[in-house]
Amino acid sequence: MEAYKDSSLPIHERVTDLISHMTVKEKVGQVNQHLYGWKVYEKNNLGEIELTDYFKDHVKWGGGLGALYGLFRADPWSEVSYDNGISPEESLEVTQKVQRYIKENSRLGIPTLFVEECPHGHQGLDSVSYPTNIGRGAMFNPELIEDMSKSMAEELSLKGVHIGLVSTLDLARDPRWGRTEECFSEDPYLASVYSEAVVKGFQGDLIQSDVPFTEKTVHEINRQPYQLGVVLKHLIAQGDALGGHNSGDVSLGERELFDIYSPLMDSARNAVGVMAAYNDIDGVPCHANPKLLKKALKEDRKFQGLVMADGGATDRLLVHSRDTVGKAKLALEGGVDLSLWDHAYLSIEEGVTSGRISEKALDEAVYRVLAIKFLLGLFDEEDTEKAEVDWKAKKEEWQKINLQSAKESITLVKNKDAILPLKEPGKIAVVGPNAHALYNQLGDYTSPQNNDGSSTVLEGIQRRFKDSDVVYSEGCQIRSPEENIEETLDIVSDSDVIIVALGGSSTRNFGGDFLANGAVDKPEENMDTGENIDVASLDIGGYQLELFRELTKLNKPIISVMIQGRPYVMEDILSDSDAVLIAWYPGQKGGEAIASIIAGDENPNGRLPISVPKSSGQLPVYYNQKLSLKKEDYFDMDGKPTLAFGDGFSYSDVSYTDLSTNLEKITSEELMDGAQIDVSVRIQNKSDIAVNEPVLLFIRKMGTPLLARHKELVGMDKVFIEGKSEVKVTFTLSAKAFLQLDFDNKPVIYPSVTRLMIGTTEKEITIK
Amino acid sequence: MEAYKDSSLPIHERVTDLISHMTVKEKVGQVNQHLYGWKVYEKNNLGEIELTDYFKDHVKWGGGLGALYGLFRADPWSEVSYDNGISPEESLEVTQKVQRYIKENSRLGIPTLFVEECPHGHQGLDSVSYPTNIGRGAMFNPELIEDMSKSMAEELSLKGVHIGLVSTLDLARDPRWGRTEECFSEDPYLASVYSEAVVKGFQGDLIQSDVPFTEKTVHEINRQPYQLGVVLKHLIAQGDALGGHNSGDVSLGERELFDIYSPLMDSARNAVGVMAAYNDIDGVPCHANPKLLKKALKEDRKFQGLVMADGGATDRLLVHSRDTVGKAKLALEGGVDLSLWDHAYLSIEEGVTSGRISEKALDEAVYRVLAIKFLLGLFDEEDTEKAEVDWKAKKEEWQKINLQSAKESITLVKNKDAILPLKEPGKIAVVGPNAHALYNQLGDYTSPQNNDGSSTVLEGIQRRFKDSDVVYSEGCQIRSPEENIEETLDIVSDSDVIIVALGGSSTRNFGGDFLANGAVDKPEENMDTGENIDVASLDIGGYQLELFRELTKLNKPIISVMIQGRPYVMEDILSDSDAVLIAWYPGQKGGEAIASIIAGDENPNGRLPISVPKSSGQLPVYYNQKLSLKKEDYFDMDGKPTLAFGDGFSYSDVSYTDLSTNLEKITSEELMDGAQIDVSVRIQNKSDIAVNEPVLLFIRKMGTPLLARHKELVGMDKVFIEGKSEVKVTFTLSAKAFLQLDFDNKPVIYPSVTRLMIGTTEKEITIK
Repeated sequence: MEAYKDSSLPIHERVTDLISHMTVKEKVGQVNQHLYGWKVYEKNNLGEIELTDYFKDHVKWGGGLGALYGLFRADPWSEVSYDNGISPEESLEVTQKVQRYIKENSRLGIPTLFVEECPHGHQGLDSVSYPTNIGRGAMFNPELIEDMSKSMAEELSLKGVHIGLVSTLDLARDPRWGRTEECFSEDPYLASVYSEAVVKGFQGDLIQSDVPFTEKTVHEINRQPYQLGVVLKHLIAQGDALGGHNSGDVSLGERELFDIYSPLMDSARNAVGVMAAYNDIDGVPCHANPKLLKKALKEDRKFQGLVMADGGATDRLLVHSRDTVGKAKLALEGGVDLSLWDHAYLSIEEGVTSGRISEKALDEAVYRVLAIKFLLGLFDEEDTEKAEVDWKAKKEEWQKINLQSAKESITLVKNKDAILPLKEPGKIAVVGPNAHALYNQLGDYTSPQNNDGSSTVLEGIQRRFKDSDVVYSEGCQIRSPEENIEETLDIVSDSDVIIVALGGSSTRNFGGDFLANGAVDKPEENMDTGENIDVASLDIGGYQLELFRELTKLNKPIISVMIQGRPYVMEDILSDSDAVLIAWYPGQKGGEAIASIIAGDENPNGRLPISVPKSSGQLPVYYNQKLSLKKEDYFDMDGKPTLAFGDGFSYSDVSYTDLSTNLEKITSEELMDGAQIDVSVRIQNKSDIAVNEPVLLFIRKMGTPLLARHKELVGMDKVFIEGKSEVKVTFTLSAKAFLQLDFDNKPVIYPSVTRLMIGTTEKEITIK
Repeated sequence: MEAYKDSSLPIHERVTDLISHMTVKEKVGQVNQHLYGWKVYEKNNLGEIELTDYFKDHVKWGGGLGALYGLFRADPWSEVSYDNGISPEESLEVTQKVQRYIKENSRLGIPTLFVEECPHGHQGLDSVSYPTNIGRGAMFNPELIEDMSKSMAEELSLKGVHIGLVSTLDLARDPRWGRTEECFSEDPYLASVYSEAVVKGFQGDLIQSDVPFTEKTVHEINRQPYQLGVVLKHLIAQGDALGGHNSGDVSLGERELFDIYSPLMDSARNAVGVMAAYNDIDGVPCHANPKLLKKALKEDRKFQGLVMADGGATDRLLVHSRDTVGKAKLALEGGVDLSLWDHAYLSIEEGVTSGRISEKALDEAVYRVLAIKFLLGLFDEEDTEKAEVDWKAKKEEWQKINLQSAKESITLVKNKDAILPLKEPGKIAVVGPNAHALYNQLGDYTSPQNNDGSSTVLEGIQRRFKDSDVVYSEGCQIRSPEENIEETLDIVSDSDVIIVALGGSSTRNFGGDFLANGAVDKPEENMDTGENIDVASLDIGGYQLELFRELTKLNKPIISVMIQGRPYVMEDILSDSDAVLIAWYPGQKGGEAIASIIAGDENPNGRLPISVPKSSGQLPVYYNQKLSLKKEDYFDMDGKPTLAFGDGFSYSDVSYTDLSTNLEKITSEELMDGAQIDVSVRIQNKSDIAVNEPVLLFIRKMGTPLLARHKELVGMDKVFIEGKSEVKVTFTLSAKAFLQLDFDNKPVIYPSVTRLMIGTTEKEITIK
């Protein structure tokens, strides 16, 4: 038996042995993820899955298949729907069939990795559709993120998938960007804590920092059922593109990258993979950046996973050049281990043969791809019979977590005269383009849904307020010039309260125009968010404001619900509504969650994960800007955003007092040696209503030679406080919170007076 | 005789000797420029100048005076006007009187440097007011910049001034910034060529690269009459502040800085001084940045001048700290040689005495300040009698250059049916808030003017079209809610053509609110541009668009003239005017210049020095962005600006053909060794009208590992072409045009296919 087949050997030995048996062509096959997965199969007249020549030819070409992207992808781009797609129940059979073919047609029997999109649940038919990232950011609840990730992993695992692609590394630094919805936050700390929770939820302890998994045997790997690998997207700084343009230029310096993106780089340490970002950083494309991928990630952070390219990204290197081998060389030697849909990596054999690409660089990439395959057990798993899965029961479990997430993702930002929770609703009018449009709640990267367990705002209200008369009218669409405002005014005229759901939409329609990487080419009328749907103006679209203004003239209580993938300008909404809930894209449980908050079953506990600007002329408005003595206000507009990161409140009356620390002074040496600072605060719930309170610890480092940041989040907790009671919350701060890059780009802790801020309390500590 | 008094010795020996005689306190006095110059004197009842105790006390404190800022400054901030200010005729007497006092009250007889603002001419009573920088950028004429700088130097010199403060280093990268008017361009090449011309015009050959002036005696310095020192503002990257906020945060990386700002750093090499910028670069304040000031400027570029602080900037260091000595230490050891109005530098003695600041660092700063005083002849000049100056004759000379500059700064961007030049004007209506408001033409940093030789648009038209009936109405103000649009419509109703002058204003009024550094605190109603007057929206202010729209309804030919300090959104203006001239703030000769173009006496030859966006939601729109394969268009607006850098045309019919080079291929080694590439183009003037044609050579470096820029200006020329004739223009490209910072931040020339572009022609050359 060849060593690589011997499961008693450490992974390193098996990979090394396997590589020694491989031809250059077979190696090239392993670093390619060239195919669109949904083109791998066709359903014949009997509804049976048949593998296509497109697939078979490519397996033959590469002597196997490095990875297969999107076998289950179903959406307008792939043109996969209920007609031709794979149901959850069929899925495991399909992965097994494809895997069998690949192994049988690989000289050395190397299996492929099944890779699937999982932005807010699996992008496959009838999968659970959770709140999008920006809404999850509002939860300030990493434990829930971990639970949700476990659910997603379980769902993918039951389908035979090995790797989920999950956006965790992007920050929403410019809300013009259409992918704002795919970011947890504008804040690096929140996003990085979440990112770690995603890795933990998907992978458990599959990879542990500083312990090379390749030194273990597969039996020593602590792999639990339903755990699979996660590839984090995107490395790095994509949200800082100039102008909010998708995959646009990024010009940031080292210190800004350290402050804003090093926590996210750190968070990727244990992931099975990361996906490189389309953008450059200061001129160097992330797909050809050895300092980023090889030094900062693989070397400094001991990252053991693989670096995957973004779709077609390696083909974009060497702008305007047709030197495909040159592009492949740049990416491969830059640290990209696995391609995605590009042509560059198909030419690696030519590059090696001609001597332009070193076989060593190829071997390094192959090593990482194969090591992950061993780690995930691909070489050692039996081709089992189809497991009996009770999908209905499973889905019910997952939906509970989904509903809880939806509830916690909703942020209350106005509640005049405590109109919420609604006491005696009487006749309720539910109106607006997002009041009864399920897909508008789900965000981009969404598959067709069978509506099982879903609810729109209208449905949620109808089901919760069974004794009330609930009327509905759309009023207008997101951006379309058609409207039925007059009809709507008529319908709501005798209602006692109006719930109006406004915002945006990332709904793609079948038959649209898409680019080769799946992004939208020509946007549709009512899709104003999502990948490649960037906006210049942040005004709410279409006739929505007009609808809102007409409704205010009726002098009825108005509860506004914002369903959106980015913050829109909401000055009028805020000033003229009685209550405002920001719900982002809350997923398929959104309607139920919103109704539960309006009814008071759930005490709202979201906080804004991103600041809300007064106009796009005011950008950027992220809260953690540097504290230069700049002119903050404009001539024609003040400089402050409408709402800031962390804003939001509950139905309870909560106060913060007694911010204290276990010491007033500490030296930077002590911190560097591992010393910690305990920071405590007393939180009182003076009301009768129990609350889940997100507690946020911010600092400001003052008196260092560098420009301080206004505030930086360095700690968070979500604590349950019964009515009429109080809790004490304690945070522990260590060196990491105080590190800055000095003039020579070395991480140091400068002496400072650091202000600690929680809620309305603050205190200063001195670092000598 | 002490060595420092011996003019036969090299400056180095004299400075060294002088320093050896100085006490710490006297040294500290030399690095301080603490006083507001206009508070140094008062006029008594007889109109005689008396020196104040404020001044005398400070001279005593420092045992002399390092430099004196703004003795002649007259403006609303200083509250100096005709009532209490110094006229040109009195000025030399005043500088001599002040200097005498200082020398007599300095133990070692050290004279002071008189430093004056000279943003667009001297900021003193009745000085010549030239077009602001952004308008001068449109000239694309460095020779004229040099002539203008000579004129300014002469004017300052006749007043006894030693140093002019001139903005040349700032780039207009975000038009929301109120100081956009103080920038030559968004483009680094244009600005750097101009910056060199300014140094040459002010200083001649006072300092020559690579020849230390301190090794010469004062007699060996090639100092010509009227030459004085120039301090270039601001080092560096101030225009890249986030959000267009004045003195806001800058987060750029090394490669972006190299591409965009190293040409400007280079341009400062021979200047007597530079002023540090308020902003940080990637977290490091420019006033505490030894890599910038000591390494990049003084060491790498062999900069021999002094680094001056911006007003109060050293006090802004160590944000929120009261450690004044610590601030001074950071700045002094960071490379700031001379203070401005701050308190930090007053504490240097305390810092040296307590051992926190090294006397060596102080000595280095003192050395640079004193060396400049020797260079400019301060130690060796006789206290001459007041020279007889024919101010009227001088001013006439300068105004000729001023008028020529104003003419060349105006850009024609629309001329439907060749309506311009106006053939048979008939009755002309001149309307709009900028039609007859002299100060609105002059920009920020302007002193009271006696209107000698000035003209508004109305006056220019009246004088040029003597046979026409010219009527005038303001219509509305810049931003005020008052308007007289109906009255205006009435007045223009029987005119044959309408000239409407719209835009912005940087006019400060006496009695306004200002900050300690002279910037506006609370802006006034109609001042919508200038220092600290940043805007969120780039829409034209107030009722101006309404006025314009009403005018278009009259169905008369409309010639729009934009008088402004930043580009405003001009979609409607462009689409509904028959002709559009962008005149920026054209200075006191603006009206005459505009009339000469409208009449056809001058063939317009300006080109836009900055791109004009469609809205601030589209920012940034500067032309030299990186060529990522980003989504350029927004969902709600296309991504292209309304007008781009370099746009504009003349009354002639000019075509470009036969772009050719003397070679098709060259190696990077050859370029590094000094090889050059000749690039020629044939330009035909097919019309009868002679033209001054700006010829711009752009390149795009393709196929390098770095993200290419869309276009980069690397050459320019302004050529006179007679009617019905042609010229051949040749540019020479050398290594500098092709340098990029590699992955290790080292300047290299990558192999590339570089596209050369002039006008509509292009050609590629290969760098191996």
